[in-house]
Amino acid sequence: MDQLIVQKYGGTSVGDIDRIKNVAKRVVRTKENGDNVVVVVSAMGDTTDVLVEMAYAISEDPHKREMDMLLSTGEQISIALLAMAIQSLGHEVISLTGAQCGIQTSSRHSKAKIDAIHTDRLEKELSAGKIVIVAGFQGVNKDMDITTLGRGGSDTTAVALAAALHADKCQIFTDVDGVYTADPRIVPAARKIEKISYDEVLELAALGAQVLHPRAVEMAGKYHVSLEVRSSFNNNSGTIIGEVSELEKVLIRGISLDENIAKISVLEVPDKPGIAFKLFSFLAGADIHVDMIVQNVNRNNVNDITFTVALDELQNAVKIAQQFAFEVGAEKVEFDRGVAKLSVVGTGVVANAEVASKFFEALYEIGVNIQMISTSEIKISCIIDTSSGKDAMKHIHEKFNM
Amino acid sequence: MDQLIVQKYGGTSVGDIDRIKNVAKRVVRTKENGDNVVVVVSAMGDTTDVLVEMAYAISEDPHKREMDMLLSTGEQISIALLAMAIQSLGHEVISLTGAQCGIQTSSRHSKAKIDAIHTDRLEKELSAGKIVIVAGFQGVNKDMDITTLGRGGSDTTAVALAAALHADKCQIFTDVDGVYTADPRIVPAARKIEKISYDEVLELAALGAQVLHPRAVEMAGKYHVSLEVRSSFNNNSGTIIGEVSELEKVLIRGISLDENIAKISVLEVPDKPGIAFKLFSFLAGADIHVDMIVQNVNRNNVNDITFTVALDELQNAVKIAQQFAFEVGAEKVEFDRGVAKLSVVGTGVVANAEVASKFFEALYEIGVNIQMISTSEIKISCIIDTSSGKDAMKHIHEKFNM
Repeated sequence: MDQLIVQKYGGTSVGDIDRIKNVAKRVVRTKENGDNVVVVVSAMGDTTDVLVEMAYAISEDPHKREMDMLLSTGEQISIALLAMAIQSLGHEVISLTGAQCGIQTSSRHSKAKIDAIHTDRLEKELSAGKIVIVAGFQGVNKDMDITTLGRGGSDTTAVALAAALHADKCQIFTDVDGVYTADPRIVPAARKIEKISYDEVLELAALGAQVLHPRAVEMAGKYHVSLEVRSSFNNNSGTIIGEVSELEKVLIRGISLDENIAKISVLEVPDKPGIAFKLFSFLAGADIHVDMIVQNVNRNNVNDITFTVALDELQNAVKIAQQFAFEVGAEKVEFDRGVAKLSVVGTGVVANAEVASKFFEALYEIGVNIQMISTSEIKISCIIDTSSGKDAMKHIHEKFNM
Repeated sequence: MDQLIVQKYGGTSVGDIDRIKNVAKRVVRTKENGDNVVVVVSAMGDTTDVLVEMAYAISEDPHKREMDMLLSTGEQISIALLAMAIQSLGHEVISLTGAQCGIQTSSRHSKAKIDAIHTDRLEKELSAGKIVIVAGFQGVNKDMDITTLGRGGSDTTAVALAAALHADKCQIFTDVDGVYTADPRIVPAARKIEKISYDEVLELAALGAQVLHPRAVEMAGKYHVSLEVRSSFNNNSGTIIGEVSELEKVLIRGISLDENIAKISVLEVPDKPGIAFKLFSFLAGADIHVDMIVQNVNRNNVNDITFTVALDELQNAVKIAQQFAFEVGAEKVEFDRGVAKLSVVGTGVVANAEVASKFFEALYEIGVNIQMISTSEIKISCIIDTSSGKDAMKHIHEKFNM
């Protein structure tokens, strides 16, 4: 039986005319293999950045609806050019925008969620034997206004299409070979992982291993879409992301370092019920995602609340924390850009107490102070000083013999 | 009563960020004047050329559907940026693609015709008090595939919208002040025309005075849309194109020179009925527009057929003429790129025999040989040598005291 394969190529993979031609060859090879192919592409290279720059040259605060109108052209250019490249190789192909492809989203411009995919057109073109090229990152709301899906949107488009079409697999082509036990630029000894579970890659991705967008992985997990991350520049096998059997489980799958975070402390907050809640509901109201939270009860019924946010939300978060501190009579707000989050991820991490102690011991061995700790089902994270982050990562990778 | 005004700004008028900001100010001024405004824009400056170049770098013969998918992004970028610029001036505005604006076209990609405009969305936004920005040059066919309207498409979009919305006027903003009695770059004494009829401007436009696209003028005439051509770089009054009363009629409205033509002769064609028809139906089948035709009956029952085509269709036309010559046993095919068409246009041109004789006399005075002649209701055209074109134009402009 023919397979249906969804392939997604990121901005680097279609960065210039030659790369687009290469992608065309790769797509055609899959088609000539007897499989049906739906291809999702991102905007070429830095197209999106150039468009964003133009918008900000015109307006300090461009409306999001118009920003989506603007940015969606990036993918539209890619799909047209890739379709032309495939046609010139003698294959039947058609490009579809998000709207044409029936990708129905919420109305939240710049961060829309896919509500449904109306696959009629897609299925019609596929059954006519065509290769279908779809613009990633975009859809339309109920008024037919163009929306974009936010960061990693093209990954999400690919997985959503694979789910809607019940595709046999979804291949994410990118500029790395797959998911590694650690960032190979930092840890030369890092190995490529052959197979990893949705949850594990989710933790690695969310923590800074930027191979795949978390939303896409979550969706893949939910709809049991088999994902493969591989390079568009070579033919190496990649990393499979899917259900992992008991046998395939390992103690530690990988380690990751997220340097794009900052720590904020509100000091000497009066210890009254509901006070911490108030701070975090202010932050949530401003759409700021808070990651780790620690609350220390001090003497004199005052608390210190410490939390971390993404670096690019630091300024807003500090503003809100200061307003909160003023309202509740806290002493002061401090912040620190110089922190990083180091995490070990694996299905055995939490179940095995030895992993945590070995992790903390390793940090102690190289004199790194742990500022905050958090754990989930499958990971342990520590906030440490950014300056020690890379060394700590290397040391732990070695100590755990990954 | 408030007026509804459709304004169209060409590629030069929105050529860069500063120009877009200027257009925004101009649009806002109209709105603050109490009028409702629908604005049609073209792609910025040379965007379209850059996209075309990319397409040809990928494929020698890019499919037209994909070309339309690609090129339509140019206008989409313009509308988003112009909307942002207007928003930052504090006005309510919304941008609409051809599809969103309900511009329904035929399926002939790259040269689609507007079949209908479904104005629901447009009218909803206008009655909400918004300025509406529409992408020129594009629409969608019945399958929701993006089409483009071909050269001058944005003018056509503007006029079609003005007609569909029963707008009070349609202003075409461009990089010239209006329609002139002759191209001012060639004839410094040329005057701006205050008012001109649809037919007259149609002849001038079709003949090379590239202020307005003929299709747009034809449509304006058909739907009685009052057009005004004016500059987007100053506040000078422009040229009104509309119904011209008996009193406003003049002998000669203007003179134009079209250098983008070529002449083809098929020599010694056997004189049989229907033979010329065969040649011209071959050409029509290849979508080649033939302008002037002359047929000379020679001795021995053989004819010479001479005709003109647009310069960029010469190669194809010669190919077809050669094939025709071979089939019917004609002697040979000759072509000449070095010809131009010089025309005088005005409602009185044909009715007054003296105009023609004065025209020919003027050419004789400066030693220019007339190769072909044709006349219509309101124009007389001569094919002459390109090298004499500009001098002839100047001389005739002076002789007729335009």
